[in-house]
Amino acid sequence: MIILAYDIVRLEEKLIIKEFRKRNVKLHLLNVATYPLHFSNGFLKQASIALIRPVSMYRAFYTAIVLETNGIPTVNKSETILSCGDKILTYKKLVEKKLPVPETVIAFTTDSALQAYNIVGFPVIDKPPIGSWGRLVSLIESSKEGLLVAEHRENLPTTQLKVHVIQEYVPSSNTDIRCFVIGNEVLGCIKRIATSGDWRSNVARGGKVEPMKLNTVLEELSLKAAEAVGAGVISVDLLMHPEKGYLVNEVNGVPEFKGFMKATGINVPEKIVEYIISKMKM
Amino acid sequence: MIILAYDIVRLEEKLIIKEFRKRNVKLHLLNVATYPLHFSNGFLKQASIALIRPVSMYRAFYTAIVLETNGIPTVNKSETILSCGDKILTYKKLVEKKLPVPETVIAFTTDSALQAYNIVGFPVIDKPPIGSWGRLVSLIESSKEGLLVAEHRENLPTTQLKVHVIQEYVPSSNTDIRCFVIGNEVLGCIKRIATSGDWRSNVARGGKVEPMKLNTVLEELSLKAAEAVGAGVISVDLLMHPEKGYLVNEVNGVPEFKGFMKATGINVPEKIVEYIISKMKM
Amino acid sequence: MIILAYDIVRLEEKLIIKEFRKRNVKLHLLNVATYPLHFSNGFLKQASIALIRPVSMYRAFYTAIVLETNGIPTVNKSETILSCGDKILTYKKLVEKKLPVPETVIAFTTDSALQAYNIVGFPVIDKPPIGSWGRLVSLIESSKEGLLVAEHRENLPTTQLKVHVIQEYVPSSNTDIRCFVIGNEVLGCIKRIATSGDWRSNVARGGKVEPMKLNTVLEELSLKAAEAVGAGVISVDLLMHPEKGYLVNEVNGVPEFKGFMKATGINVPEKIVEYIISKMKM
Amino acid sequence: MIILAYDIVRLEEKLIIKEFRKRNVKLHLLNVATYPLHFSNGFLKQASIALIRPVSMYRAFYTAIVLETNGIPTVNKSETILSCGDKILTYKKLVEKKLPVPETVIAFTTDSALQAYNIVGFPVIDKPPIGSWGRLVSLIESSKEGLLVAEHRENLPTTQLKVHVIQEYVPSSNTDIRCFVIGNEVLGCIKRIATSGDWRSNVARGGKVEPMKLNTVLEELSLKAAEAVGAGVISVDLLMHPEKGYLVNEVNGVPEFKGFMKATGINVPEKIVEYIISKMKM
Repeated sequence: MIILAYDIVRLEEKLIIKEFRKRNVKLHLLNVATYPLHFSNGFLKQASIALIRPVSMYRAFYTAIVLETNGIPTVNKSETILSCGDKILTYKKLVEKKLPVPETVIAFTTDSALQAYNIVGFPVIDKPPIGSWGRLVSLIESSKEGLLVAEHRENLPTTQLKVHVIQEYVPSSNTDIRCFVIGNEVLGCIKRIATSGDWRSNVARGGKVEPMKLNTVLEELSLKAAEAVGAGVISVDLLMHPEKGYLVNEVNGVPEFKGFMKATGINVPEKIVEYIISKMKM
Repeated sequence: MIILAYDIVRLEEKLIIKEFRKRNVKLHLLNVATYPLHFSNGFLKQASIALIRPVSMYRAFYTAIVLETNGIPTVNKSETILSCGDKILTYKKLVEKKLPVPETVIAFTTDSALQAYNIVGFPVIDKPPIGSWGRLVSLIESSKEGLLVAEHRENLPTTQLKVHVIQEYVPSSNTDIRCFVIGNEVLGCIKRIATSGDWRSNVARGGKVEPMKLNTVLEELSLKAAEAVGAGVISVDLLMHPEKGYLVNEVNGVPEFKGFMKATGINVPEKIVEYIISKMKM
Repeated sequence: MIILAYDIVRLEEKLIIKEFRKRNVKLHLLNVATYPLHFSNGFLKQASIALIRPVSMYRAFYTAIVLETNGIPTVNKSETILSCGDKILTYKKLVEKKLPVPETVIAFTTDSALQAYNIVGFPVIDKPPIGSWGRLVSLIESSKEGLLVAEHRENLPTTQLKVHVIQEYVPSSNTDIRCFVIGNEVLGCIKRIATSGDWRSNVARGGKVEPMKLNTVLEELSLKAAEAVGAGVISVDLLMHPEKGYLVNEVNGVPEFKGFMKATGINVPEKIVEYIISKMKM
Repeated sequence: MIILAYDIVRLEEKLIIKEFRKRNVKLHLLNVATYPLHFSNGFLKQASIALIRPVSMYRAFYTAIVLETNGIPTVNKSETILSCGDKILTYKKLVEKKLPVPETVIAFTTDSALQAYNIVGFPVIDKPPIGSWGRLVSLIESSKEGLLVAEHRENLPTTQLKVHVIQEYVPSSNTDIRCFVIGNEVLGCIKRIATSGDWRSNVARGGKVEPMKLNTVLEELSLKAAEAVGAGVISVDLLMHPEKGYLVNEVNGVPEFKGFMKATGINVPEKIVEYIISKMKM
């Protein structure tokens, strides 16, 4: 039995289910929004592997933890999901593997954030350690804008959202590169280009996608970045720094792939399903 | 140079500083509320070791991450701080080492929480995965009380606080046992007894403490629990189940020790400081 | 020109629009989610009257304020919307008109809430001053349950949601009476009966509705309650106390009426539209 | 009996208590953080008047409501406290009395806020309807900054804090004028000058104060603004517009007066106490 753990069925999950259905495998759809996750669950223990797809990072993380504790291998592993989902942890993992990343400073208060902006030098990026689709990722061009952002951050309701991840702004930031990695294969890369009205290139923010020729530098970097967080089904976001070259910016542990499929024509759900089946415990 | 990373100077930090001052070591007080934490900081890199003491779990976790990335060993390690701070992760680590824990079910919504209460059987404990001093730890004795708690939880402001960690209630819960472990030494154990008005035994809630004779079962369990989360300076909370015996309930990675010192007379800060010095990289 | 101010088009708004379209009036649909509300707006000033229907209480209140400041009569008036939306203000308005209400105590902290529960005597109701559809309205039967609720309330993110409106529990609370008042006419009353699983009778919580014969006591009370908050299009919720008789419990200033229409067969949107037209400034 | 309702004893409350003690009046200190406020309280009903001083606007508002419902005149009246505390309501009250205010637009979403910025024209001020000491009051100089602020606002935890009060920026905004009004007497005015690092002149933000000669225009405006919100003990904030002249910007219903006393030497607590005594019901 293969478990597909989900909460919301996006296009991605529909396509994955369709691919599973084509094959001779027993698929169990596990809706984690309605099913209580017992640390020792006889039914779940029967599964050979689980694909983790809840939309919220914490739901995905905790689902993977419970399934792993029940003895089921998960794709991705809980540790990988958190290492991607928490951007401060991501940087640690990348830097430990000597991968190039943007200059980064962590600050816990407005006071230290204002110092950090000056250490990095304007313009800077300031984002909380968790969050998807570019949410609250701010481009700050002056102390005045920094104060504006920092004061609003202080009014957010949790300690974690008040933490500042402050980074150098890479001039080409409105175009980032997303590579899709499954296991030790780089499926390909695309460019995501921000459209007018927002400097962020997230597809969820109207960013346009176009295919991109893979080169060996990009391929090696993507692979190493995916390995740094534990490998599995991973998308890697990179920026092109005018002097430093490619920098790994973010890594996603429960990746959406609608835009990637559209731009490249690669059948991602088929690749995922084949990977899962190959990883089933015998 | 030894770093003491802190944000609020509690009695605990004062005592630790005093112990460091007695010794011939260079101590650097790092106030993480005002100092920006750079992933590559020339000054910080000079340190041989860092003791991590910020009060907020996420601040402690992120401080440890940045210092580790700068090449400095930390006590505790970032991974340990998170493994203690996130109770779902704690259970995973404990169960993987086959340590006895209360029966536990995770639920993401009111719907699945209500099912989980019935799976575990009333009375149950319901708590969010993060939080200190017993905050939001609820004793639920009926479906009606469960609905009351679940509805309020849904109105808390973050996904993580909406997650339910649901556990069997151990009848002796108003008395828990706290053991203090440094490295591979169990310093001792105390009982914490809830006072009238609250069933929780947290010292911060007025719980009373008394010393307790250490036995080999307790000693072995505490040591293994500390090891399960990576060891260091750890306090382990245990419950006495009438049939199952001792259960490991929680583990603390930035432990307070005021109450423990008072009950046992053990000089905890001296033990911590000696441990830190012994762990300095040469 | 008649303005219909809305943000979400529920069944209620659809039916109202349909009734307006049947008549020879110029209707302007004002989506307050996308239209900036200027305190001095030449276009808006042309309107003769505005019907206020945004779902969120504060959006409705602020929309009415801006339209009134532009010289447009609104149904309901901003003052009426707030007097209904803020339950503490509601009680003031009702008590000032000597209308019977449940015994009520306000508390700002857990400490004073626990005292207030004992003053009123268990079981009690505890709710925040704002909120619709019975959200966070809690039935508390003991100090222990009170502590459970109060602690969760303290973790809600705003001062206003932390305020406790504590009231005697009226034993028939699972059946409440809702009367619909337009201008000085009581359209009728219905019973709302809580279904199993929740003691609250809100239609949004699965409460069942049935028609109810109007009596003069009920009619007079509803009318006076509507007048106490400024009259207009109002629904009045009453409870039947075994000794005190009818008590006015809540008053709604942007009432939904789907359930009421279904139970009584009364064409509420037609009545609303006729009322609005009769109130247009000449 | 005179009630002084408070929660935190600031310097202001200490000085007021001292002035009461000098006189032959019975003063009851009502700590609303610990005392449950019953809508019908025999003890409270004995009071002749109440001075409302809780720090939080909603606590002050609800305290006044409960005391008024008990038949006690309050200074300020609940209606006045809300009319000052909710800035959208303030503008309504001021505009209805034809008092000059900055151009103001209300917006409920990022979409309409961005339109509103353009209607008013950059630079603009954007603030939530409630909040003290300039909290979240943002100076926005471009669409890009507007998007930054609007996105953060959307992540604040309540509907009310998501509402945008958007206003023209008055070039002299870093110097505002604060006049103190008690009953129908203007005690005087001061200038508050923003210090470097923040454009806001709030004393709580380090703004400097200096005395200012009162002129008849300022006096009349302040008096009318205080009357527009119901009069009592009120401070009025004004801005000097280069073309429009004085504009009333904000009105405070539970005013602090430390800075005002220091700059003018006027004994504000004595004036307040004398006003309260003169207003006691006979």
